[in-house]
Order: sequence, then structure tokens, then C-alpha cells
Amino acid sequence: MAEFPKSIKNLIDAFERLPGIGPKGATRLVFYLLNTPKAYVNDLSQALVKMKEETKICQKCFSVSEQNICSICNNDHRNHRQICVVERAIDVMAIENIGEFKGVYHVLGGVINPLDHIGPDDLKIDELVNRVRTICEEELKKMGEESNNCYIVEVILATNPTMEGEATALHIKKRLEGLNIKISRIGSGLPIGADLEYADQATLCRALDGRRDL
Amino acid sequence: MAEFPKSIKNLIDAFERLPGIGPKGATRLVFYLLNTPKAYVNDLSQALVKMKEETKICQKCFSVSEQNICSICNNDHRNHRQICVVERAIDVMAIENIGEFKGVYHVLGGVINPLDHIGPDDLKIDELVNRVRTICEEELKKMGEESNNCYIVEVILATNPTMEGEATALHIKKRLEGLNIKISRIGSGLPIGADLEYADQATLCRALDGRRDL
Repeated sequence: MAEFPKSIKNLIDAFERLPGIGPKGATRLVFYLLNTPKAYVNDLSQALVKMKEETKICQKCFSVSEQNICSICNNDHRNHRQICVVERAIDVMAIENIGEFKGVYHVLGGVINPLDHIGPDDLKIDELVNRVRTICEEELKKMGEESNNCYIVEVILATNPTMEGEATALHIKKRLEGLNIKISRIGSGLPIGADLEYADQATLCRALDGRRDL
Repeated sequence: MAEFPKSIKNLIDAFERLPGIGPKGATRLVFYLLNTPKAYVNDLSQALVKMKEETKICQKCFSVSEQNICSICNNDHRNHRQICVVERAIDVMAIENIGEFKGVYHVLGGVINPLDHIGPDDLKIDELVNRVRTICEEELKKMGEESNNCYIVEVILATNPTMEGEATALHIKKRLEGLNIKISRIGSGLPIGADLEYADQATLCRALDGRRDL
């Protein structure tokens, strides 16, 4: 039985380690690349290295950025007193894509997951608490007595509506208690366009709990 | 609306051009790579360039190889008088994987497809005819009179059982007429493990036509 040439085998192995790409998919990709212009393969190769070299973690919200502070945290037109807490940087982009949210973000870097040995200390929860506390203190100084009647910061917990995401949201809620802030959780229920008939029980249950007055 | 940092956007664009990877899949891959060790990303980047630099087309069978003549064509233990004609180099590997076929290959580089403006001249059909003719002439010289009673070469047409693959197989059969060779077509019908109930009409029809005596 003949084998693939070594350079092809190496690339198949490298592709196979990507999520969602199995041995067959990796082989198909490599043989597709064999027939593409060299320029594209070089572009892809360089884009990989550059992505790794040029991206940093924003020191404020822990999203990805090419500067030390990302373009969202650096934007004075955004509401820095409304913080959307998400699991991963990719979730920031998902929310940015709707173009509705005008606040800022905080990327946790995952969720609490005892099975994977990920505890609260492995996530950017302390950083979130400190960040919110600092904003509260700064705003209090500015506002003085007025501040008693309104919330200073809104924290929107937008972790995924999974078991781990819910647990992480509850944990963060507890950690933020005592601060003069509003804490909310993103709505969950049936997605738009869905069919009640095919919805799972947990989603239906959540949809009923989360019913809104019309 | 914030956008992805440029280096991330470039890599997403590069991934999106791969077959079977859409915008969402490309984004997921890039954000996965953001969290992997730099060494792996560098490996992938280098494997891409190396694959393109180090692979050549075998001058005999037009499969991929790291030498001018591939390891299969260079193997004296294989039957060089049994030529399996396939569309692409990846098909060579599919047949090699079963470990049953002991002959050699001929990669056409595609199929005749008028809609895509691919005619017989764009494929390695002339090369196949010349290759078979050369083998026939050489063997005839060696064998002398004996050769009248047996086929010298067997050509197995293993293009895909699609409209284009069938047309290409028929075209090649015509081109090889007149030579003292056996021409066969790979069997088609129901795949092993399939269910008659779910088979399409064309496959069922082919399965009936291709029935074998037991």
C-alpha cells in the first residue's frame, strides 16, 4: 500500500488537529490546495503566522485586539457603564454583528466547568469585579448625592444558556452583590423562526418562564 | 459596529476560500487558533508552504509525488500491465487504502465536462493512450507470437459513476480501441450496508444491470 508523500501527510496531520476537520476533510483540503495557485497557499501560510504575531488581548476587556486596548474600549461614543459579559472573544463579534449594543464588553475566557477543572479563578471574574467597582467609585465621586437614586453600571450576563453558562452567570451575580449596579441575564426561549412542536422541553420551559407582557 | 482586527480578518478570508468552509466555520477556526500554542500555528503555516514546494506531478501517472516518478510507478513489484485510470490523485489514495490493487495508476486530472469547458484535450488522455500503446509495443517485441492469445494490458476505468465520469470512461474506451487490451469499468450498484428502500432509481437500475451470477 502506497502512502501519501511526506509533505502532504504533514499538512493533513496539521489540518486534522483543527476542530470539525476529520481525516477525510483534511485530505480533501490538502488535495484542493495542491491544485490552487501557490500565491493563495502562501497568503494562507502568512496570514496564520501574522494572526498569531499581531493579535493581543485587550487589557481592559480581554477581547482580541491589535493594540493593548481594543477599539471598543477605546471608543468614547460607547456607553462604558453598560458591560456585556461574554465567554469568548468570538461572542463579542456575534453581538457586534447585530449592531444594536452600544456598551462595552468583558470576556471571561470560558465558563466555570468542574469537569474540565476550570474554576472561577481561571476566568477573568476578579478582573470584572474590580473593573465594575472602579467604575462605581469613579462615578460616585463625580455624581455625589445624586447617585443614590439610580444604578451606576449595568452588567449584562451573556454567557451561553448552557448548564455551565448559567452557573457562571449566577456565580458572577453573587460576586457583584453589594455594588450599586443592575445585573441582567440575556433572554432565553424559542429562537426566532422556531417551531414549538420541535422545541426541547428545557427551552419551552424557559420560554414560558421568560414570558413578557404585551 | 466594531470589526475584527485586520490580521484576524485576513485569516478568516483565507480560510473561507477553502472548500466546505463558510464564514462561520472560518471564524470559528481562527478563534480556535487564537487559543492554541504558537508552535502549532507555525507548523501549519510551514506545512502549507512545504507541501506546495515539495510535491511534484509524477511524469508517468500524473499522481502527486516528491520525486519525478512516484513510488508506485517506481515499484517493480507492482503489475505495470494493469492500469487503473482515475480522475484525481486523491482517488489513487482511496484505492491504495484498500490495499488490494497491485497494478499502477493513471490520473486524468479531471473529467470531460462541457459545462466547465473541460474537453478531452485538457485531460491526460493522449498520455494514457501513448502509455498503453508503448507498453503494448514493448511487450509484443518480448512475447512475439505468444501474444495473440492473451491481452497484454488491462485498463480499469475508475472515473466516478457520475454523468461526466461515465462519458469520460466511454471516450477513453473509444480512444483505446484497436489495441490488444482488456478494458473494464469499476462496478457500480448499491454500496455495502445500503438499504434498497432508500436507494435512488439510477443506482437501483445500475445494480440490476450489473447483477452477477452466484
